[in-house]
Amino acid sequence: VGPGLLGGSVHLAVRAAGLGCHRVAVGRNPQRLQLALDADAADEVTTDFATALDGADLVVVCTTIGSFPAIFERMAPHLPGGCVVTDVGSTKQVVVGQARRLLGRSTQFVGAHPMAGGEKTGVQYARADLFDRATCIVTPTQSSPRSAVARVEAFWRTLGCRVIRMTPAAHDRAVATVSHLPHAAAACLMRLADRSGHLDLAGAGLLDMTRIASGDPDLWVDIFATNRRSVVASIDRFVRELTALRDAIDGDRRRRVRRLLDEPRQARDAWIDRRYQRDEVEP
Amino acid sequence: VGPGLLGGSVHLAVRAAGLGCHRVAVGRNPQRLQLALDADAADEVTTDFATALDGADLVVVCTTIGSFPAIFERMAPHLPGGCVVTDVGSTKQVVVGQARRLLGRSTQFVGAHPMAGGEKTGVQYARADLFDRATCIVTPTQSSPRSAVARVEAFWRTLGCRVIRMTPAAHDRAVATVSHLPHAAAACLMRLADRSGHLDLAGAGLLDMTRIASGDPDLWVDIFATNRRSVVASIDRFVRELTALRDAIDGDRRRRVRRLLDEPRQARDAWIDRRYQRDEVEP
Repeated sequence: VGPGLLGGSVHLAVRAAGLGCHRVAVGRNPQRLQLALDADAADEVTTDFATALDGADLVVVCTTIGSFPAIFERMAPHLPGGCVVTDVGSTKQVVVGQARRLLGRSTQFVGAHPMAGGEKTGVQYARADLFDRATCIVTPTQSSPRSAVARVEAFWRTLGCRVIRMTPAAHDRAVATVSHLPHAAAACLMRLADRSGHLDLAGAGLLDMTRIASGDPDLWVDIFATNRRSVVASIDRFVRELTALRDAIDGDRRRRVRRLLDEPRQARDAWIDRRYQRDEVEP
Repeated sequence: VGPGLLGGSVHLAVRAAGLGCHRVAVGRNPQRLQLALDADAADEVTTDFATALDGADLVVVCTTIGSFPAIFERMAPHLPGGCVVTDVGSTKQVVVGQARRLLGRSTQFVGAHPMAGGEKTGVQYARADLFDRATCIVTPTQSSPRSAVARVEAFWRTLGCRVIRMTPAAHDRAVATVSHLPHAAAACLMRLADRSGHLDLAGAGLLDMTRIASGDPDLWVDIFATNRRSVVASIDRFVRELTALRDAIDGDRRRRVRRLLDEPRQARDAWIDRRYQRDEVEP
C-alpha cells in the first residue's frame, strides 16, 4: 500500500529475492501507480482495496503514518483470513494501537520499522537493495500470534534486513534519541545559521549536520505528533546536556569542557569501529 | 610555524602557486619536521626561531591557538622589519589582542581564518589544494597598516581562497553560530545517543550529524575558551529554538511544528542552490 520510495523498494526487493510473489501496488494516484509499473515495482496496480486484497497473503503499508487510520479503515472489510499485515512507519505505539482498533483484534498485524530511506521520495528512487543490511525493528505485542511475528520477521530478513525485536514503547523511546532528536536539532541549527546572515561562511560541518533538515516536513510533523512524549523528553535531555557544556565554557572550566568533548569523541570512534566490523565496509 | 595539516598545506600550496619562495618550517618536534621535508612541505626545517625568521618576508602561524602566546613571545625578538605575520586560528579577538601585546605594536600582524581542514591532523594529510575555494576571513583592525592587509589578503587569494574581510569581533560572532555551535551540538547529541544504549539503531543521519564530534578535543577547548561569550550566546539561542519546537510538539500545534520544520528546509535548499551556483560543483 503506497507506491513510493519504500513501497516500490519493497516490491523490487521481493522480486530480486526470487520469492515468486504476485506484487500488487495500491494507491490513490493513477499516475504514481503507472510510475510503479514502469519501474517494475509492481505486477499489478489498482486504486481499489477490494481488488488489491483479494487473495492477499501479506500486506505492507508504506504510506506516511498520518494516513494510516484512513487506510486501515478502508482495508478492514477486505482483509482475507490468515493475511498478515505489517508496515514501515517510523513510530510504533500509536500505529499498533490504530491497527488493533481499526483492523480488528483478529487481524494478524505486526508493526515494523525498517530503518532505510532518504531525503528523496517517490517510486522513481526505489531500489532493490534499499533494505540491504538496514536494521528493521519489529514490534509485536503480547497479543500478536507467534506465527504472524515469525512470518513478518522472515519477510524483512528476506529483503536483507537485520531484524531486531522490541516493544512498541521501547522502539519509540530509542528512535526518539537516535533519530527524532537529531532531526529537531538539525532544523533548529539551520534556522539559527540562516538568521545569522553568515551561511556563506559555513562549511562541510554545518552542511552535514543539517542534511536531514531537508526531509519532508509533513512526514516529520506526523512522526513528532505520534511520538510526542519521547521526543519532548529527548529534547529536554538534550537541553540539559547543552546547558552543562555551556556552563562549563562560561565558567572557563577547561578540564570539564575537555571531558564533555572527549567522551563523545571516544564513543563515536568506538561506534564507527563496531559498524565497520559488523558491515565490513566503511560506514 | 607548525608543520601540521594546515602549515604543510600552506607550504604545498605556495609551491603549487609557483611563488618561488624559500619555505622554512619551524616546530618543536624534529620527527614532525622531518615528515614535513619528506612530504615536500618545506625547503628547510628548524626548531630555532632566530634561524627561521632570519630574512623572513611572511610568517604564517599554523599551530593550535592555545600555543599562540608562547609562540608570539618566542618570535618577537627575531622578527625582521617589514615582515608581515598572519595566522590560521579559528577565533580572532583573543588572537589579535595577543599579537598586539606580545609581538609589539609596530609588528605588521593581520589575523586570518582560512575555513579549511578536517578531522585528520598531521602534515602527512597536507594537500596543495586544501585552500582551493575555501573561504578565508581576514580580520584587520584600525591599526593594521593597509599595505600589510593587502599583502595578507593577496597571499590567501593566491592559495585559492575566497577572501572576506571582517572585524575580529564580527568574525567571532559569525563562526560561533555556523561552526562552534554545531560542534557543541554534535558532542551533546553523541553523548545522549551513546548513553541511550541504542546506537546500533542509528543510521546515516546521526552519523553525519556527529562527524565533527570526532575533532581533537584540545583544539576545541581552546576555541571555546577564546570565543566564550559568543559561543555561550549561540548555545542560549539554540536552546530557545529547541524549546520553541519542543513546546509546539508538546502542545500538538501541528501547523506551528510544520512551520518550524519547513522554514529551515527551505533555507537549506536555497543555501545548497547558492553554493552550487557559486562553486559549480555539487556541494
